[in-house]
Amino acid sequence: MKNPSLVLNKIDDISFEEFDAPKLTQPHDVLIEVKKTGICGSDIHYYAHGKIGDFVLTKPMVLGHESAGVVAEVGSGVTSLKVGDKVAIEPGVPSRLSKEYKAGKYNLCPHMVFAATPESNPNKQNPPGTLCKYFKSPEDFLVKLPEHVSLEMGALVEPLSVGVHASRLAKVSFGDHVLVFGAGPVGLLAAAVAKKFGAASVTVVDIFDNKLQMAKDMGAATHTINSKTSEKAVSEDFPSGHAPTVVLECTGAEVCIQQGVLSLTRAGRYVQVGNAGGYVKFPITELATKEISLHGSFRYGFGDYKTSVAILDENYKNGKENATIDFEALITDRFSFKDAIKAYDHVRAGGAVKCIIDGPE
Amino acid sequence: MKNPSLVLNKIDDISFEEFDAPKLTQPHDVLIEVKKTGICGSDIHYYAHGKIGDFVLTKPMVLGHESAGVVAEVGSGVTSLKVGDKVAIEPGVPSRLSKEYKAGKYNLCPHMVFAATPESNPNKQNPPGTLCKYFKSPEDFLVKLPEHVSLEMGALVEPLSVGVHASRLAKVSFGDHVLVFGAGPVGLLAAAVAKKFGAASVTVVDIFDNKLQMAKDMGAATHTINSKTSEKAVSEDFPSGHAPTVVLECTGAEVCIQQGVLSLTRAGRYVQVGNAGGYVKFPITELATKEISLHGSFRYGFGDYKTSVAILDENYKNGKENATIDFEALITDRFSFKDAIKAYDHVRAGGAVKCIIDGPE
Amino acid sequence: MKNPSLVLNKIDDISFEEFDAPKLTQPHDVLIEVKKTGICGSDIHYYAHGKIGDFVLTKPMVLGHESAGVVAEVGSGVTSLKVGDKVAIEPGVPSRLSKEYKAGKYNLCPHMVFAATPESNPNKQNPPGTLCKYFKSPEDFLVKLPEHVSLEMGALVEPLSVGVHASRLAKVSFGDHVLVFGAGPVGLLAAAVAKKFGAASVTVVDIFDNKLQMAKDMGAATHTINSKTSEKAVSEDFPSGHAPTVVLECTGAEVCIQQGVLSLTRAGRYVQVGNAGGYVKFPITELATKEISLHGSFRYGFGDYKTSVAILDENYKNGKENATIDFEALITDRFSFKDAIKAYDHVRAGGAVKCIIDGPE
Amino acid sequence: MKNPSLVLNKIDDISFEEFDAPKLTQPHDVLIEVKKTGICGSDIHYYAHGKIGDFVLTKPMVLGHESAGVVAEVGSGVTSLKVGDKVAIEPGVPSRLSKEYKAGKYNLCPHMVFAATPESNPNKQNPPGTLCKYFKSPEDFLVKLPEHVSLEMGALVEPLSVGVHASRLAKVSFGDHVLVFGAGPVGLLAAAVAKKFGAASVTVVDIFDNKLQMAKDMGAATHTINSKTSEKAVSEDFPSGHAPTVVLECTGAEVCIQQGVLSLTRAGRYVQVGNAGGYVKFPITELATKEISLHGSFRYGFGDYKTSVAILDENYKNGKENATIDFEALITDRFSFKDAIKAYDHVRAGGAVKCIIDGPE
Repeated sequence: MKNPSLVLNKIDDISFEEFDAPKLTQPHDVLIEVKKTGICGSDIHYYAHGKIGDFVLTKPMVLGHESAGVVAEVGSGVTSLKVGDKVAIEPGVPSRLSKEYKAGKYNLCPHMVFAATPESNPNKQNPPGTLCKYFKSPEDFLVKLPEHVSLEMGALVEPLSVGVHASRLAKVSFGDHVLVFGAGPVGLLAAAVAKKFGAASVTVVDIFDNKLQMAKDMGAATHTINSKTSEKAVSEDFPSGHAPTVVLECTGAEVCIQQGVLSLTRAGRYVQVGNAGGYVKFPITELATKEISLHGSFRYGFGDYKTSVAILDENYKNGKENATIDFEALITDRFSFKDAIKAYDHVRAGGAVKCIIDGPE
Repeated sequence: MKNPSLVLNKIDDISFEEFDAPKLTQPHDVLIEVKKTGICGSDIHYYAHGKIGDFVLTKPMVLGHESAGVVAEVGSGVTSLKVGDKVAIEPGVPSRLSKEYKAGKYNLCPHMVFAATPESNPNKQNPPGTLCKYFKSPEDFLVKLPEHVSLEMGALVEPLSVGVHASRLAKVSFGDHVLVFGAGPVGLLAAAVAKKFGAASVTVVDIFDNKLQMAKDMGAATHTINSKTSEKAVSEDFPSGHAPTVVLECTGAEVCIQQGVLSLTRAGRYVQVGNAGGYVKFPITELATKEISLHGSFRYGFGDYKTSVAILDENYKNGKENATIDFEALITDRFSFKDAIKAYDHVRAGGAVKCIIDGPE
Repeated sequence: MKNPSLVLNKIDDISFEEFDAPKLTQPHDVLIEVKKTGICGSDIHYYAHGKIGDFVLTKPMVLGHESAGVVAEVGSGVTSLKVGDKVAIEPGVPSRLSKEYKAGKYNLCPHMVFAATPESNPNKQNPPGTLCKYFKSPEDFLVKLPEHVSLEMGALVEPLSVGVHASRLAKVSFGDHVLVFGAGPVGLLAAAVAKKFGAASVTVVDIFDNKLQMAKDMGAATHTINSKTSEKAVSEDFPSGHAPTVVLECTGAEVCIQQGVLSLTRAGRYVQVGNAGGYVKFPITELATKEISLHGSFRYGFGDYKTSVAILDENYKNGKENATIDFEALITDRFSFKDAIKAYDHVRAGGAVKCIIDGPE
Repeated sequence: MKNPSLVLNKIDDISFEEFDAPKLTQPHDVLIEVKKTGICGSDIHYYAHGKIGDFVLTKPMVLGHESAGVVAEVGSGVTSLKVGDKVAIEPGVPSRLSKEYKAGKYNLCPHMVFAATPESNPNKQNPPGTLCKYFKSPEDFLVKLPEHVSLEMGALVEPLSVGVHASRLAKVSFGDHVLVFGAGPVGLLAAAVAKKFGAASVTVVDIFDNKLQMAKDMGAATHTINSKTSEKAVSEDFPSGHAPTVVLECTGAEVCIQQGVLSLTRAGRYVQVGNAGGYVKFPITELATKEISLHGSFRYGFGDYKTSVAILDENYKNGKENATIDFEALITDRFSFKDAIKAYDHVRAGGAVKCIIDGPE
């Protein structure tokens, strides 16, 4: 069986290649025919720069890790899925024996293999990406999509799970006042999750009015602040009328990190989602005096994919017209697989929120 | 009744004054005859600089807030204490109606009045300090000292509670590997608490060998690192053989804060105890990638004083010779009340770990 | 100022009496003109039986503890409320010095005084009930009702807070499958809270179809089970398609308690809200093997009243027609104050879900 | 390679058999030469009754699941152990793909295979017991014994981990007052763990004075109660002077379960360790009114074996003479492998606390 794939060869060089489809070798292996894949900011970064931090592209790599598809074949031990089921694909699989996996924190497993990620460790072999026809995954890193969750929405489950993980670490619950920094895909999805988790207010901060407008239009933000033109995030004049009890920082920008700590109420909870790329000037005395708790958030872990699917199911089960969050509004661009390189160039040029590429025919 | 008191008038100016002793006005008021008072670094700071951050000395203030004494008189509603009982005095009393008090976090109450602290808020009146003969406190902010806990040890309860609060926020439990930055009184006491809470190893980091030696001699540290001469805190060559699961940062120094984050294991817990005095360059990406949780620690709260007294009781109940921590080793200097100004000058000159002043005769 | 009041003299004997209105004596005292009061099952129990467990009526007592009203007068220290504000009244006030209050668990304070409750302890004096014109309360046990929350809904805050407390102890969060035993007022409100807290399904169990129908009609239950005619609660054929992750037991009936434990998934959470009145035959081996955690729930505590008001605000802020829960459906009967005795007899006769009595004119 | 083994054929029928030694088939397999095995009460129960609840012996089964040994052979992927290392053997291995394992709660995995346990599910194959020469285990279910932990103490790690798991569920920490019901091996070890976790007092309850004496002599109990002759567990006259904050119920006896709930302080924590074998009369109203939290405890899970080994290491690292708990006192009887049947008969006759059988020569 042939496996047409989209390969990043090196900086500025993507091509279509054809490989053999992966074979099921373990009883719990599942073969998925990939149908929808979102482009992630990291994909573009590798395309433009060939590396992110220590992750340096040294050989060609199949792209893609935000995907949903349809089960094409199941191993002999698979019981939870059958051919034809729609699934969201979790792109990282940890070591089954690691301390972190055993502790219920598999996202921290140092032996994790993650699709479409360059690997510096010669003893580790990351799997190819999901921008191909057939992708192989163990059964338990696939989540079945219920009737009302489309394959396109299934491709959103990966970044949505980043938001779920953050809101869980922050223990967002009914009545919280949540301040989200960043109105890119992750910030918007984190805001949407906070809303679904019962936040009384979700205030999104960004420097672009059109992004803030989207946060409101899609139903994720109850209030917004353009931090270029307003000091409200760090004054006591909060748009929601309440000092935030939770901050979800999704930019990694130093000024946002600082404002997040300054704006929080005493005993507030702060989750760092955005990648700051190293050191920042940090108001640690403010954090100590207010006894803020700050949690680092890395990808997503146990239960997060299932919760993301549950969020989408709850949102769409009474029809799109009754959805409280318009997740589809995030998908600003759609391309066929044969136009995948155009899709990458389009996203690289800027302006897209989330771009989805169909699977190969 | 006369109340001889030690007063900081302004920078470099301490004098003995005599006031009227406070009168019991509420049913739960207790009058304590102060017997032992420790000098805190903050006292010296006000003496030398007249302020700490926003807390500026604008009028004379009775010094002292680390004290133990003997109950001299009790209000009509007092049931838990009687005249003659030895008690440790908690110097800060929150508003009984505040949200923070009601939530079980009274140390965060913005209406807290705290002995011997300059107050900028004109609507708030901090009580005088404890360096006097008679000090008034509500019953429930006094903790009775059991038989085996001396008044001198009672004066140590205040800084010890800072360590208890930190270890609780860090959820130090049996088997943890704890890294403590700073071998001043707070760091040493935090290390001792971590040991009592069951830490498998307690590694203390400082830049002075004599302080590190004290950490070992008193039984608080299992290992030490002189960070001036060793990189072990941030290498993988930890003296204990284990990457820390907990960091208690008791210096506020930027380099220690950085090393604390870098040295921690994945999902490690970090508590900021030391006052950094503002912003520091902070490795937030390392924190996020390892999903570290960082808690600010401010003074002490519900149950901490009682736990401190319980620690001292457990330590000394089978006699000093069977104590596992030599808390008395911290007390390097002792002065009578009439030599209290000499005591302040002595500590200001440096070299003392903890200096205790007797109450007035 | 006169204070017309409804007094339970002894079994079967309620009368109207007129007392002097309470006077404000403390700076934080507030006088409320009571406007709406719900009848609680316990009121009826005292009316019919003169006691509940150890609480025995030995002298006349003003009835009522589920009330909302309007601020009539404020003490000199009151800052959070002003005359004319609508408020929900929390009927129990703990000792400000108790260990439990200080720990953030004031509902467990043994010195709590609670309106309209007979008191066996001669050293404790419970305040009169709220079925009167003027009721006095400290400022911090009143919660201001926002614009969209009516006084009638304010009278529902007390039983609603029982549901909030239970859902918080159960840590109900997005995606939970919740099984609620009992479709009386507390069960219905607990189900509504679980829904608002993000439960994916809320299955209500009762033995009366009309009550179950109300659970569905008001929007609290996604599924129902009539346990008289169905074994579904303890089979694997759960109506929601999922074994419960949370049980909120609001009946106290032995069979419900048993079914709750048997139906829960491994590591499930069970909260006992209903009063069983003593001992029950309990499947403790099942609980141990599945590592269920079971929490006792007693009334409500820190933050619960505020969360209840926040739930009502969120529910009604876009108008009744957009409310997701029809809380008003619970109020099946309304009486004027002059018909208050009729109201009690009506409720005692059975059939009412929640009956509201207006305040005296 | 031959594998002499001790086989329970049916009730009252144990024999020595010789099988082939297991072969390493997976990269992470390890072969252990078993050196020390404790006899568990459940072994005796199968010997005498052929079943425990639903676990019915239907075919011959190699006995033993409390063992330590020496690594004899390692698979190609093993990195944490080498031939000659002393290890404690964890006898149950969960499914690597199960939800429970992934959640960090592998003891609740329904697909767990457990050594020396009859299995009713025809699709599950429990491994043979450890009373043989060679036992095969995956690397990550073995814990290396440090220098000061003997193989005999290694055989104690299994029941000790039951105590660790219970104390962790109860969050026993410094200053807790712990009441332990039962002075059999599990109760004694649970008491010892509570002591090591920092309990201020550990009161052990039993009906045999000699067992209570052992609890004191080994250093686990600070106080004891003979519940046959004293009502102290349910009076307010607690031997420790403090109402318990934690109960560890290790008997499963109805009266102990009841007393445990009645004796606990408000907001106390109760852990059910003992197997009650079904239903008990349970004071659920008392539990609700005091807001007790009750956790079921089933075997042991993530980190518990490591913590047990850490406890033994800490206890013995300064020599037996400085040990604070005399764990060896529990081992009242020792037999060679060839006398293993005698050992079983001896324990069955009663009187032994813990009996250890050497591995085959």
